[in-house]
Amino acid sequence: MGTGRLESFSDGVLAVIITIMAFELKTPISSNVHALSHRLPLLLVYVLSFAFIGIYWVNHHHLLHATRLISAGVMWANLYLLFWLSLIPFVTAWVGAQHSASLPAACYAIVANGSGLAFRLLSSAIRRANPKDQTSSRILSLTRKENASTLLYTSSIGLAFLSPYIAYASFVIVAILWFVPDRRLVA
Amino acid sequence: MGTGRLESFSDGVLAVIITIMAFELKTPISSNVHALSHRLPLLLVYVLSFAFIGIYWVNHHHLLHATRLISAGVMWANLYLLFWLSLIPFVTAWVGAQHSASLPAACYAIVANGSGLAFRLLSSAIRRANPKDQTSSRILSLTRKENASTLLYTSSIGLAFLSPYIAYASFVIVAILWFVPDRRLVA
Amino acid sequence: MGTGRLESFSDGVLAVIITIMAFELKTPISSNVHALSHRLPLLLVYVLSFAFIGIYWVNHHHLLHATRLISAGVMWANLYLLFWLSLIPFVTAWVGAQHSASLPAACYAIVANGSGLAFRLLSSAIRRANPKDQTSSRILSLTRKENASTLLYTSSIGLAFLSPYIAYASFVIVAILWFVPDRRLVA
Amino acid sequence: MGTGRLESFSDGVLAVIITIMAFELKTPISSNVHALSHRLPLLLVYVLSFAFIGIYWVNHHHLLHATRLISAGVMWANLYLLFWLSLIPFVTAWVGAQHSASLPAACYAIVANGSGLAFRLLSSAIRRANPKDQTSSRILSLTRKENASTLLYTSSIGLAFLSPYIAYASFVIVAILWFVPDRRLVA
Repeated sequence: MGTGRLESFSDGVLAVIITIMAFELKTPISSNVHALSHRLPLLLVYVLSFAFIGIYWVNHHHLLHATRLISAGVMWANLYLLFWLSLIPFVTAWVGAQHSASLPAACYAIVANGSGLAFRLLSSAIRRANPKDQTSSRILSLTRKENASTLLYTSSIGLAFLSPYIAYASFVIVAILWFVPDRRLVA
Repeated sequence: MGTGRLESFSDGVLAVIITIMAFELKTPISSNVHALSHRLPLLLVYVLSFAFIGIYWVNHHHLLHATRLISAGVMWANLYLLFWLSLIPFVTAWVGAQHSASLPAACYAIVANGSGLAFRLLSSAIRRANPKDQTSSRILSLTRKENASTLLYTSSIGLAFLSPYIAYASFVIVAILWFVPDRRLVA
Repeated sequence: MGTGRLESFSDGVLAVIITIMAFELKTPISSNVHALSHRLPLLLVYVLSFAFIGIYWVNHHHLLHATRLISAGVMWANLYLLFWLSLIPFVTAWVGAQHSASLPAACYAIVANGSGLAFRLLSSAIRRANPKDQTSSRILSLTRKENASTLLYTSSIGLAFLSPYIAYASFVIVAILWFVPDRRLVA
Repeated sequence: MGTGRLESFSDGVLAVIITIMAFELKTPISSNVHALSHRLPLLLVYVLSFAFIGIYWVNHHHLLHATRLISAGVMWANLYLLFWLSLIPFVTAWVGAQHSASLPAACYAIVANGSGLAFRLLSSAIRRANPKDQTSSRILSLTRKENASTLLYTSSIGLAFLSPYIAYASFVIVAILWFVPDRRLVA
């Protein structure tokens, strides 16, 4: 089977996730600056989560562009990744509402961590489905970038209880790290 | 007519259904563990329903991959399947809110049952539209797996009134049964 | 320009419209039959509106399957049709909440009427963009079915003030009329 | 890389944005004309925003139709455009709720301005990715129409504090200006 429908379904899910978050930016209760500034923390987390989903879309695009064949395992690994990403609007809304608390930040880190692991799983499922393909065998070789982001996300789960703002800073660092797509897939 | 647009429309509907449920995971009212644990039943039903829709997507993918031509009848059968699946977020939210009650669990079983029957209807409509096609004629031959899941879903409607947890257990068993896609279509 | 992206955008909008309505089926407030029966009028209107959007999807599919070229005019006519269809969830929710009142039923008839006219406009825009195409010239020749549904929808606007249930009956009749797709396009 | 998946993802996001706004047209609280007229300002802003997103879809369609290759830069520029457009439902709902206030109108102008600039950025990213392509080099040459709309949007941010209705009038003028797609891309 080709990658066509897997890509279009993933595009659909990612498109809905990214716009559902915008829908959670609830209308300010009045028309003054004070009411708007109440929405500011949520707006900032929205920017972060939009970048987060955007990064996954770009890398998912690159990963599947380098893929020729998919198996049932690839389909399930892809659904597993989409499951974790579908929890992003939930943690985004929670962090937006309680940005100075530790638990929402830690949960955001858990979901980010789960998404990262699911992406690795998808990469390895694709490698198994395309054993002779050179490009896909390059996919799995873990780079420093992948290890750095796993380390940052995992430590954020704990660090969020020291201060949620340390966790937020880690999320921003990982986002900047991944802004440039993976060289192995682009090359 | 080819299957292209039928697949892309179905992908769109399934993508929205699967992410709309994530949207119903309402933000916990405070930032402590107690508030999060209040969302736990809904989170568990969400996992089940995500797997449920995921299984339909995978099998729909396999079914239409084995299909060459579609008729007006196939289009309507497909819309009928999407109708039943579109009720999943409704019963998911209800079960999540009232997980110890019997009626929501029974309604979930009814919707699951309706979806299963609609999938059989779609399979048979596809067989009629592709009469000479070997792959599609293999589709209809009911297997033990299909009969087992119909039996489990139908009995769940009644068993939910004994205890909703027996119904939930049945749903999990059917999900595990269908985790591996239909061998007739993959082969 | 080909029809590819116009179809995929329309599929996306129709997929979201059809599932957004399911999202408005709010969770019953308790777990007994009484609470569920309170949702019954909305559930029935949902079935009607799902069929309504489904009919437009099927006929839109047939119409664009018979089309080769699109112009800027076709794009705008298509957006105009999607605009009217996007109001269906609004009138569906209103009728579901106030099913015994006249105004919501009349507004539903107005939106249904607007959608029907927009579909005719799209058909004629497509005919103008494909002047030499035989199939598309067959599109515009108004049939009795199109005139009957226009008559039924237009009269429903007024009849709703006599009794909303007469309007609902008209909607069901039109839905049955259009259940079988247009013979001119299928042939 | 080709433009296929970029187009389908953008279609998905734009489809969700355009229908999410329809979802914010909350059901009138009763069934009389008075309750409906309360929804009128929101309905009018909805028409404006639907046209706004529709114009971007049409021009995005034209722009990418004239594009052969995409780079990582084009993908990010496209996501940046989608980010600004995803804020349209937020400002639409706010203007609909507080249509006589200045701040919501000014914020609408800011989002419209951000979208316009992001579209220019996307055009220039596409030109850089297709250096030898004649069509794409025509894209960047700023026309009077683009400058006029930038001027109108930028001045609207300030003028909204004089009267929000001047800002609304500017939005309508820009919408009419862009109704006909860019001649450079169609030709």
